[in-house]
Amino acid sequence: MTAPFPPILYQEDLRPGFVVESAGVTVTESQILDFARLYDPQPIHIDVEAAVAGPYGGVIASGFQTLALAFRMIHDTGVLRAGLGSPGFDDLRWPAPVRAGDTLRARLEVLESRPSQSKRDRGVVKVRLSATNQARVEVLSGVSPILIRRRPE
Amino acid sequence: MTAPFPPILYQEDLRPGFVVESAGVTVTESQILDFARLYDPQPIHIDVEAAVAGPYGGVIASGFQTLALAFRMIHDTGVLRAGLGSPGFDDLRWPAPVRAGDTLRARLEVLESRPSQSKRDRGVVKVRLSATNQARVEVLSGVSPILIRRRPE
Repeated sequence: MTAPFPPILYQEDLRPGFVVESAGVTVTESQILDFARLYDPQPIHIDVEAAVAGPYGGVIASGFQTLALAFRMIHDTGVLRAGLGSPGFDDLRWPAPVRAGDTLRARLEVLESRPSQSKRDRGVVKVRLSATNQARVEVLSGVSPILIRRRPE
Repeated sequence: MTAPFPPILYQEDLRPGFVVESAGVTVTESQILDFARLYDPQPIHIDVEAAVAGPYGGVIASGFQTLALAFRMIHDTGVLRAGLGSPGFDDLRWPAPVRAGDTLRARLEVLESRPSQSKRDRGVVKVRLSATNQARVEVLSGVSPILIRRRPE
Protein backbone atom coordinates (compact mmCIF):
# COMPACT_ATOMS: atom_id res chain seq x y z
CA MET A 1 0.00 0.00 0.00
CA THR A 2 1.41 3.37 -0.98
CA ALA A 3 1.06 6.30 1.37
CA PRO A 4 -0.45 9.45 -0.18
CA PHE A 5 2.01 12.24 -0.83
CA PRO A 6 1.85 14.93 0.30
CA PRO A 7 0.19 13.41 3.37
CA ILE A 8 -3.52 14.09 3.70
CA LEU A 9 -4.37 16.59 6.41
CA TYR A 10 -7.58 15.76 8.27
CA GLN A 11 -9.70 17.99 10.44
CA GLU A 12 -7.72 16.91 13.50
CA ASP A 13 -4.52 18.12 11.81
CA LEU A 14 -5.84 21.57 10.99
CA ARG A 15 -5.62 23.37 14.31
CA PRO A 16 -6.10 27.10 14.98
CA GLY A 17 -2.95 28.95 13.96
CA PHE A 18 -2.07 26.50 11.18
CA VAL A 19 -1.01 28.54 8.12
CA VAL A 20 -0.18 27.52 4.58
CA GLU A 21 1.10 29.86 1.89
CA SER A 22 0.92 29.17 -1.82
CA ALA A 23 3.52 29.55 -4.51
CA GLY A 24 3.42 32.80 -6.47
CA VAL A 25 1.33 33.13 -9.60
CA THR A 26 1.69 36.01 -12.06
CA VAL A 27 -1.63 37.22 -13.44
CA THR A 28 -1.68 38.00 -17.14
CA GLU A 29 -3.76 40.45 -19.12
CA SER A 30 -5.24 37.66 -21.24
CA GLN A 31 -6.22 35.74 -18.10
CA ILE A 32 -8.07 38.81 -16.79
CA LEU A 33 -9.80 39.48 -20.12
CA ASP A 34 -10.72 35.83 -20.72
CA PHE A 35 -12.40 35.49 -17.33
CA ALA A 36 -14.16 38.83 -17.49
CA ARG A 37 -15.61 38.33 -20.96
CA LEU A 38 -17.46 35.30 -19.56
CA TYR A 39 -18.33 36.41 -16.06
CA ASP A 40 -17.79 40.13 -15.42
CA PRO A 41 -17.74 42.10 -18.69
CA GLN A 42 -17.44 45.59 -17.23
CA PRO A 43 -15.13 47.96 -19.17
CA ILE A 44 -12.63 48.07 -16.29
CA HIS A 45 -12.11 44.31 -16.77
CA ILE A 46 -12.39 43.80 -20.55
CA ASP A 47 -11.59 47.07 -22.36
CA VAL A 48 -7.91 47.97 -22.16
CA GLU A 49 -8.42 51.31 -23.90
CA ALA A 50 -11.23 52.41 -21.59
CA ALA A 51 -9.41 51.06 -18.54
CA VAL A 52 -6.22 53.03 -19.29
CA ALA A 53 -8.30 56.22 -19.04
CA GLY A 54 -10.03 54.97 -15.87
CA PRO A 55 -9.26 55.17 -12.16
CA TYR A 56 -6.68 52.35 -12.17
CA GLY A 57 -4.79 53.25 -15.36
CA GLY A 58 -5.40 49.82 -16.85
CA VAL A 59 -7.54 46.71 -16.63
CA ILE A 60 -7.94 45.08 -13.24
CA ALA A 61 -9.11 41.56 -12.48
CA SER A 62 -12.72 40.85 -11.59
CA GLY A 63 -12.95 40.32 -7.86
CA PHE A 64 -14.69 37.03 -8.55
CA GLN A 65 -11.58 35.92 -10.45
CA THR A 66 -9.27 37.00 -7.63
CA LEU A 67 -11.34 34.92 -5.22
CA ALA A 68 -11.35 31.83 -7.44
CA LEU A 69 -7.66 32.16 -8.26
CA ALA A 70 -6.67 32.46 -4.60
CA PHE A 71 -8.68 29.34 -3.86
CA ARG A 72 -6.95 27.51 -6.72
CA MET A 73 -3.54 28.55 -5.41
CA ILE A 74 -4.38 27.13 -1.98
CA HIS A 75 -5.86 24.02 -3.59
CA ASP A 76 -2.53 23.44 -5.32
CA THR A 77 -0.70 23.27 -1.99
CA GLY A 78 -2.61 20.03 -1.28
CA VAL A 79 -3.78 21.23 2.13
CA LEU A 80 -7.46 20.73 1.24
CA ARG A 81 -7.20 17.17 -0.08
CA ALA A 82 -9.61 15.98 2.63
CA GLY A 83 -11.99 18.86 1.87
CA LEU A 84 -15.69 18.25 1.28
CA GLY A 85 -16.74 21.72 0.17
CA SER A 86 -18.05 24.75 1.97
CA PRO A 87 -21.50 26.18 2.65
CA GLY A 88 -20.41 29.78 2.20
CA PHE A 89 -18.06 32.68 2.62
CA ASP A 90 -18.17 35.67 4.94
CA ASP A 91 -16.58 39.11 5.04
CA LEU A 92 -15.18 38.84 1.53
CA ARG A 93 -13.13 41.95 0.76
CA TRP A 94 -11.08 43.20 -2.17
CA PRO A 95 -8.96 45.90 -0.49
CA ALA A 96 -6.72 46.62 -3.51
CA PRO A 97 -6.94 45.95 -7.26
CA VAL A 98 -5.20 43.10 -9.10
CA ARG A 99 -3.51 44.28 -12.29
CA ALA A 100 -2.00 42.38 -15.18
CA GLY A 101 1.59 41.55 -14.24
CA ASP A 102 0.91 41.31 -10.52
CA THR A 103 2.33 38.25 -8.79
CA LEU A 104 -0.07 36.93 -6.18
CA ARG A 105 0.47 34.66 -3.20
CA ALA A 106 -2.43 33.11 -1.35
CA ARG A 107 -2.58 32.29 2.35
CA LEU A 108 -4.88 30.06 4.36
CA GLU A 109 -5.02 30.39 8.14
CA VAL A 110 -7.06 28.11 10.36
CA LEU A 111 -9.19 30.11 12.80
CA GLU A 112 -11.29 27.33 14.35
CA SER A 113 -11.51 23.55 14.00
CA ARG A 114 -14.10 21.20 15.45
CA PRO A 115 -15.84 17.89 14.70
CA SER A 116 -19.21 18.06 12.97
CA GLN A 117 -22.15 17.74 15.34
CA SER A 118 -24.23 15.74 12.86
CA LYS A 119 -21.74 13.61 10.87
CA ARG A 120 -18.95 11.63 12.50
CA ASP A 121 -16.77 11.42 9.39
CA ARG A 122 -16.09 15.14 9.08
CA GLY A 123 -15.37 18.38 10.86
CA VAL A 124 -15.76 22.09 10.25
CA VAL A 125 -12.57 24.09 9.80
CA LYS A 126 -13.09 27.83 9.74
CA VAL A 127 -10.35 29.45 7.68
CA ARG A 128 -9.28 32.89 6.60
CA LEU A 129 -8.33 32.96 2.92
CA SER A 130 -6.27 35.92 1.75
CA ALA A 131 -3.95 36.95 -1.05
CA THR A 132 -1.23 39.56 -1.40
CA ASN A 133 0.60 41.01 -4.38
CA GLN A 134 4.33 41.48 -4.99
CA ALA A 135 4.29 44.66 -2.86
CA ARG A 136 2.80 42.63 0.05
CA VAL A 137 -0.44 44.56 -0.33
CA GLU A 138 -3.49 42.50 0.49
CA VAL A 139 -5.83 42.15 -2.48
CA LEU A 140 -8.32 39.63 -1.05
CA SER A 141 -9.54 38.40 2.28
CA GLY A 142 -12.48 36.40 3.55
CA VAL A 143 -13.56 33.78 6.06
CA SER A 144 -15.10 30.43 5.20
CA PRO A 145 -16.13 27.29 7.08
CA ILE A 146 -14.76 24.30 5.16
CA LEU A 147 -15.95 20.73 5.71
CA ILE A 148 -12.92 18.46 6.12
CA ARG A 149 -12.88 14.68 6.59
CA ARG A 150 -11.78 13.31 9.97
CA ARG A 151 -9.01 10.77 10.16
CA PRO A 152 -10.41 7.30 9.34
CA GLU A 153 -10.77 5.19 12.50
CA MET B 1 -27.69 63.23 -29.07
CA THR B 2 -28.90 59.68 -28.60
CA ALA B 3 -30.31 58.57 -25.28
CA PRO B 4 -28.79 55.40 -23.80
CA PHE B 5 -30.98 52.30 -24.05
CA PRO B 6 -31.89 50.72 -21.75
CA PRO B 7 -31.85 53.90 -19.67
CA ILE B 8 -29.03 54.13 -17.13
CA LEU B 9 -30.15 53.66 -13.57
CA TYR B 10 -28.29 55.86 -11.11
CA GLN B 11 -28.01 55.52 -7.35
CA GLU B 12 -31.08 57.74 -6.92
CA ASP B 13 -33.08 55.29 -9.06
CA LEU B 14 -32.14 52.21 -7.08
CA ARG B 15 -34.35 52.47 -4.02
CA PRO B 16 -34.91 49.83 -1.34
CA GLY B 17 -37.32 47.22 -2.66
CA PHE B 18 -36.21 47.60 -6.28
CA VAL B 19 -35.85 44.11 -7.78
CA VAL B 20 -34.53 42.92 -11.11
CA GLU B 21 -34.59 39.34 -12.32
CA SER B 22 -32.41 37.94 -15.06
CA ALA B 23 -33.24 35.75 -17.99
CA GLY B 24 -32.68 32.03 -17.49
CA VAL B 25 -29.34 30.42 -18.31
CA THR B 26 -28.86 26.65 -18.59
CA VAL B 27 -25.57 25.48 -17.15
CA THR B 28 -23.74 22.84 -19.17
CA GLU B 29 -21.37 20.11 -18.07
CA SER B 30 -18.57 21.53 -20.20
CA GLN B 31 -19.06 24.96 -18.64
CA ILE B 32 -18.70 23.44 -15.17
CA LEU B 33 -15.63 21.40 -16.12
CA ASP B 34 -13.93 24.25 -17.99
CA PHE B 35 -14.23 26.62 -15.05
CA ALA B 36 -13.23 24.07 -12.44
CA ARG B 37 -10.14 22.87 -14.27
CA LEU B 38 -8.82 26.43 -14.01
CA TYR B 39 -10.11 27.54 -10.63
CA ASP B 40 -11.49 24.71 -8.49
CA PRO B 41 -10.17 21.32 -9.64
CA GLN B 42 -11.75 19.16 -6.96
CA PRO B 43 -13.07 15.77 -8.18
CA ILE B 44 -16.68 16.80 -7.51
CA HIS B 45 -16.25 19.58 -10.11
CA ILE B 46 -13.97 18.01 -12.75
CA ASP B 47 -14.23 14.20 -12.63
CA VAL B 48 -17.58 12.94 -13.92
CA GLU B 49 -16.80 9.34 -13.03
CA ALA B 50 -15.83 10.14 -9.44
CA ALA B 51 -18.71 12.59 -9.08
CA VAL B 52 -21.32 10.03 -10.18
CA ALA B 53 -20.26 7.88 -7.24
CA GLY B 54 -20.22 10.89 -4.89
CA PRO B 55 -22.83 12.57 -2.71
CA TYR B 56 -24.51 14.47 -5.57
CA GLY B 57 -24.60 11.70 -8.19
CA GLY B 58 -22.74 13.86 -10.70
CA VAL B 59 -20.56 16.90 -11.11
CA ILE B 60 -21.70 20.13 -9.52
CA ALA B 61 -20.53 23.64 -10.28
CA SER B 62 -17.85 25.31 -8.19
CA GLY B 63 -19.51 27.80 -5.87
CA PHE B 64 -17.14 30.44 -7.19
CA GLN B 65 -18.56 29.82 -10.67
CA THR B 66 -22.16 30.06 -9.42
CA LEU B 67 -21.33 33.41 -7.85
CA ALA B 68 -19.64 34.77 -10.97
CA LEU B 69 -22.37 33.45 -13.27
CA ALA B 70 -25.15 34.99 -11.18
CA PHE B 71 -23.32 38.32 -11.32
CA ARG B 72 -22.99 38.00 -15.10
CA MET B 73 -26.70 37.28 -15.45
CA ILE B 74 -27.53 40.43 -13.48
CA HIS B 75 -24.94 42.39 -15.45
CA ASP B 76 -26.73 41.39 -18.64
CA THR B 77 -29.97 43.01 -17.47
CA GLY B 78 -28.20 46.38 -17.73
CA VAL B 79 -29.20 47.42 -14.22
CA LEU B 80 -25.58 47.98 -13.17
CA ARG B 81 -24.52 50.17 -16.09
CA ALA B 82 -23.69 53.00 -13.67
CA GLY B 83 -21.79 50.60 -11.40
CA LEU B 84 -18.28 51.42 -10.20
CA GLY B 85 -17.42 48.12 -8.52
CA SER B 86 -17.75 46.81 -5.02
CA PRO B 87 -15.46 46.55 -2.00
CA GLY B 88 -16.73 43.14 -0.95
CA PHE B 89 -19.41 40.57 -0.35
CA ASP B 90 -21.04 39.36 2.86
CA ASP B 91 -22.98 36.31 3.94
CA LEU B 92 -22.29 34.41 0.73
CA ARG B 93 -24.13 31.08 0.82
CA TRP B 94 -24.51 28.13 -1.53
CA PRO B 95 -27.61 26.46 -0.07
CA ALA B 96 -28.04 23.87 -2.86
CA PRO B 97 -25.78 22.45 -5.58
CA VAL B 98 -25.81 23.53 -9.24
CA ARG B 99 -25.76 20.56 -11.62
CA ALA B 100 -25.22 20.33 -15.34
CA GLY B 101 -28.56 20.94 -17.03
CA ASP B 102 -29.90 23.23 -14.32
CA THR B 103 -31.46 26.45 -15.54
CA LEU B 104 -30.61 29.35 -13.27
CA ARG B 105 -32.22 32.74 -12.80
CA ALA B 106 -30.50 35.50 -10.87
CA ARG B 107 -32.17 38.18 -8.80
CA LEU B 108 -30.92 41.49 -7.45
CA GLU B 109 -32.82 43.26 -4.68
CA VAL B 110 -31.89 46.68 -3.36
CA LEU B 111 -31.72 46.69 0.45
CA GLU B 112 -30.30 50.17 1.08
CA SER B 113 -29.29 53.14 -1.07
CA ARG B 114 -27.49 56.29 -0.02
CA PRO B 115 -25.09 58.93 -1.37
CA SER B 116 -21.40 58.43 -0.66
CA GLN B 117 -20.10 60.45 2.27
CA SER B 118 -16.74 61.12 0.60
CA LYS B 119 -17.45 61.41 -3.15
CA ARG B 120 -20.30 63.46 -4.58
CA ASP B 121 -20.48 61.60 -7.88
CA ARG B 122 -21.51 58.25 -6.44
CA GLY B 123 -23.57 56.37 -3.90
CA VAL B 124 -23.54 53.05 -2.12
CA VAL B 125 -26.31 50.62 -3.01
CA LYS B 126 -26.48 47.58 -0.79
CA VAL B 127 -27.96 44.68 -2.71
CA ARG B 128 -28.88 41.07 -2.16
CA LEU B 129 -27.76 38.89 -5.06
CA SER B 130 -29.38 35.47 -5.33
CA ALA B 131 -30.02 32.73 -7.85
CA THR B 132 -32.56 29.93 -8.10
CA ASN B 133 -32.78 26.80 -10.25
CA GLN B 134 -35.68 25.47 -12.35
CA ALA B 135 -37.27 24.00 -9.20
CA ARG B 136 -37.22 27.48 -7.58
CA VAL B 137 -34.63 26.23 -5.09
CA GLU B 138 -32.14 28.89 -4.07
CA VAL B 139 -28.57 27.98 -5.05
CA LEU B 140 -26.82 31.24 -4.13
CA SER B 141 -27.33 34.26 -1.94
CA GLY B 142 -25.19 37.07 -0.64
CA VAL B 143 -25.16 40.76 0.19
CA SER B 144 -22.86 43.34 -1.37
CA PRO B 145 -22.44 47.12 -1.25
CA ILE B 146 -22.10 48.34 -4.85
CA LEU B 147 -20.80 51.77 -5.77
CA ILE B 148 -23.16 53.38 -8.29
CA ARG B 149 -22.82 56.75 -10.02
CA ARG B 150 -25.25 59.49 -9.07
CA ARG B 151 -27.26 61.27 -11.76
CA PRO B 152 -25.08 63.92 -13.42
CA GLU B 153 -26.04 67.42 -12.28
